[in-house]
Order: sequence, then structure tokens, then C-alpha cells
Amino acid sequence: MGRPAAGRSVTAKVLALLEAFTPEAQALTLTELARRADVSLPTAHRRAMELVAWGALERGPDSRFRIGLRLWEVASLAPRGLGLREAAMPFMEDLYEVTHENVQLAVRAGLELVFVERISGRDAVPVRTRVGGRFALHATGVGLVLLAHAPVEVQEEMLASPLRGYSAKTTTDPVRLREVLADVRRRGYAVSDGQVTTDALSVAAPIRDANDEVVAAVSLVVRADGAEPAALAPLVRTAARGITRRLASPVG
Amino acid sequence: MGRPAAGRSVTAKVLALLEAFTPEAQALTLTELARRADVSLPTAHRRAMELVAWGALERGPDSRFRIGLRLWEVASLAPRGLGLREAAMPFMEDLYEVTHENVQLAVRAGLELVFVERISGRDAVPVRTRVGGRFALHATGVGLVLLAHAPVEVQEEMLASPLRGYSAKTTTDPVRLREVLADVRRRGYAVSDGQVTTDALSVAAPIRDANDEVVAAVSLVVRADGAEPAALAPLVRTAARGITRRLASPVG
Repeated sequence: MGRPAAGRSVTAKVLALLEAFTPEAQALTLTELARRADVSLPTAHRRAMELVAWGALERGPDSRFRIGLRLWEVASLAPRGLGLREAAMPFMEDLYEVTHENVQLAVRAGLELVFVERISGRDAVPVRTRVGGRFALHATGVGLVLLAHAPVEVQEEMLASPLRGYSAKTTTDPVRLREVLADVRRRGYAVSDGQVTTDALSVAAPIRDANDEVVAAVSLVVRADGAEPAALAPLVRTAARGITRRLASPVG
Repeated sequence: MGRPAAGRSVTAKVLALLEAFTPEAQALTLTELARRADVSLPTAHRRAMELVAWGALERGPDSRFRIGLRLWEVASLAPRGLGLREAAMPFMEDLYEVTHENVQLAVRAGLELVFVERISGRDAVPVRTRVGGRFALHATGVGLVLLAHAPVEVQEEMLASPLRGYSAKTTTDPVRLREVLADVRRRGYAVSDGQVTTDALSVAAPIRDANDEVVAAVSLVVRADGAEPAALAPLVRTAARGITRRLASPVG
């Protein structure tokens, strides 16, 4: 968005139509779609109808466009999306059954993380996340794990940029954050105590692929009041190791 | 696929590159990608690199292409994908905790169904399904529910086409299938007893949207041996009604 339409490839123009949809704008009129994708109304109409014909978009009785089921089907083949999710789900179920708290699975995308799965107990502490949603790396437990194991240049870029404070307890000092990341690597897990919302504490551990690289993180998010991170860590680390083992030798 | 490349729109050519990926072919070389999308090697290369730049595809150290995380993020906005899933998940968790069996959520796509969620107990009876995967409508519990509430023309098309037998117990006679569908509508739930694999029995119920239209189905799949569908039906129907209520008035 914002780039002049003429300079973009046709592929980019098609993708701009998909990119027009966001969590805040899940159903768009043709006019909204054209404006957000920065293309003319006739172009938006022609391409949108092609996307509808294929199933990448759907058009409801309200004549608004929405992301289509067929795109979701194809996208479910993303190895870091549902593929990872399938490997992780049984272990996340175990964590959920034992605790009835929030269990989250996330991967890194640049300087942010994307939540690929979440299980929430009805009475668990409310969390600000959504499957498919993004969040900064420096505040959440999963984010700290992913950042601690990211390439050095990613860490340096993160430490050099302004660190947003989500609560009074968010680590916004780069020197302190560097120490936290070293701790995460040494201990094998991360603790985020009230750093996103003051009432929540999360404990997260790294998930590795067959090449021993950290590709995801799993966390348990509980009420901060009375939480014992040192007692929760073995649970989360065990789940992470189980998922790591499954990724190394997938079954059925 | 199969259509001559020249007659296709550029949008169609871009989508053909995405469509090249299937559950059986999740990682493709450039040559495979070009062949499957029916475009020249230079075209495949140029467009694939544009898709990689945007994040619709990812290229691994093995230089194979895979579906990218960014496409999955956008696709997660599909109202019949993860949106439905978010509404359904708490009720599916309840069904799982009470039974420790397989819990499935599906929507209709033409004459097939797409599984949008699944929770499986470690010791639950094995099922042939995959999140994001498709299955015929006439064999599974969720499929029978979706078919029973599909528009008449969809039912007629299904009944007029050959009905594949997955096991000796699959209903392949259209006259009998018509009776089964009437039963499903009258009773408010469907039972598939050994009609996919002889060792599994599923009980499914309809989920309705705010306009009272059936938009999805939820099922419990248990070992056929000793199963009591009449005892399972109230459980599944209750979960389906809970999800229906949530879809009518989404929260937070």
C-alpha cells in the first residue's frame, strides 16, 4: 500500500487485493477494496471477480468481499502454520488438561511473532492474542524465546529500535533486554511476568526442528498473582521437547 | 491446471502457482512448480520470486518452494476458517475433555467438506482426516449433516453422481441416502456407523449462523465397537447449539 500502482508487478497487484483484508477489516465493499489495494475500481472489480471464481475471496449476500475458504485450504499447507500445529497439538492438549490455562504456540516473522495456535480455558486469564495475529517479540514469553534464539542481526535490529512498553513492567531498556535474552538461552525457558498485561505471567520454551534450530515457541499463560514460574517451567519445557521430537520424526 | 496458459488471466496464473501445492506436494522445486502451474520456467521463476518477496511462498535452504506464513496469516481471516474455529474451540474443548475422543469441525465446499479443526485424543480411534483436508459428503457424520442441510440442487447433484464406497457399510444407494438425509433433518443429528472405516462411528450435529442457516457441523468420532450413538447425540447437539449461540453474538 502506498506505492504507486503503475510501478507494481501484476502479482503485487493481485496480492495487494488479499493484503487489503486485516483483522479490523474482514469484510470489504468493492470501493473499500479498490482504495485499500490502491487500484482503480474497474481493475479491482475484474481481479476480485477472478479471485472469487478461484475461491481466494468469497462474496456474501451483503455483496461484501471476504477471504475465501479455498485460500485457507491452500494456506493450511504452510509448514510453519498448520503443519507445525498438527505436530504440537497433542502436547498442547496435555498442557491444557493439566493446567486449564492458556496454551500458546508462536513462530517468528521478522521483528514480530505470529500466533499459530491457542487453547484457552474458559476461566483462564484473558490474553490479548488471536490465532493468525502478530505481536512484538520483546514482551511475551514466546517472543523472548524466539528473540533469544534469532540470528544475531535480528537481535541487534530489535535492540536498536524503540521498545514499546505494554505495561509498566515491559522491558524497554535494551541493555536489560540483552541480559534477559542471555538468561533465556542459559535457563532454557523465558518468563514474562506482567510485561504484556500486569495480571498475566507466561512461561515459554523453544521448539527445534530436525536441524536443531529454534523454529517455534510454546507457552503457558497464567494469572500472575500466585504463579510459580519455576514450577511451571518443567511442564512447558517437557511439552516443547515432545513437539521437537515429533518434528524430527513425523508420524502418520 | 490443464487449461492453456495463454487463455488464462494473470490472476489465474498467479493462483495456479499457489494451487500447485497439495498435501502430497508441500515442497516443490522451480521445475516442478512450473510444470504443475503450466507456465514456462522463466515465468514461474519471476512470479515465484514475487510471491516469495511478499511472503506467499517461502524458499528453504534446499531451494524448494513452500507455502509461506504470510499467506497463512491473511487466510486466517477467512470467516469459515479460523473465525469459525475461534467460536467453536471452547465447545470442542469441552467435548474433548468429557470424552477424550476425536472432535471434528467441518464446512461444506461444493460436493465435499473441508475440516477446519480437529482435536484428537492420544488413544482415540484413528481417523483419516487432516485440518485443511477434504472428504466426500455422503460418508462422514459431519458430511451427512452438511448434505442434509445443503440447497436442494446440491443434494440432487450429489444423489445423481456415483457415491464412492469407503467401507462395506458406506451408503452408496441414492434412494437409501435420501432417506438417511431426511432422518438427519428430523432427528437433528447424523450417525455414520463404520461408513468411512469400519472401526469408527461418528455422531454429528449442525451449527447455524445468525440467519439460522447451517454453516458447519461438529462431530465426535469414537470406536464403533460398543458405541451408543443415542447417548452421544445430546453431547454433540449441546456443543453445536453452544457454537451456534456464539456465532449469533460473538464476544471479545
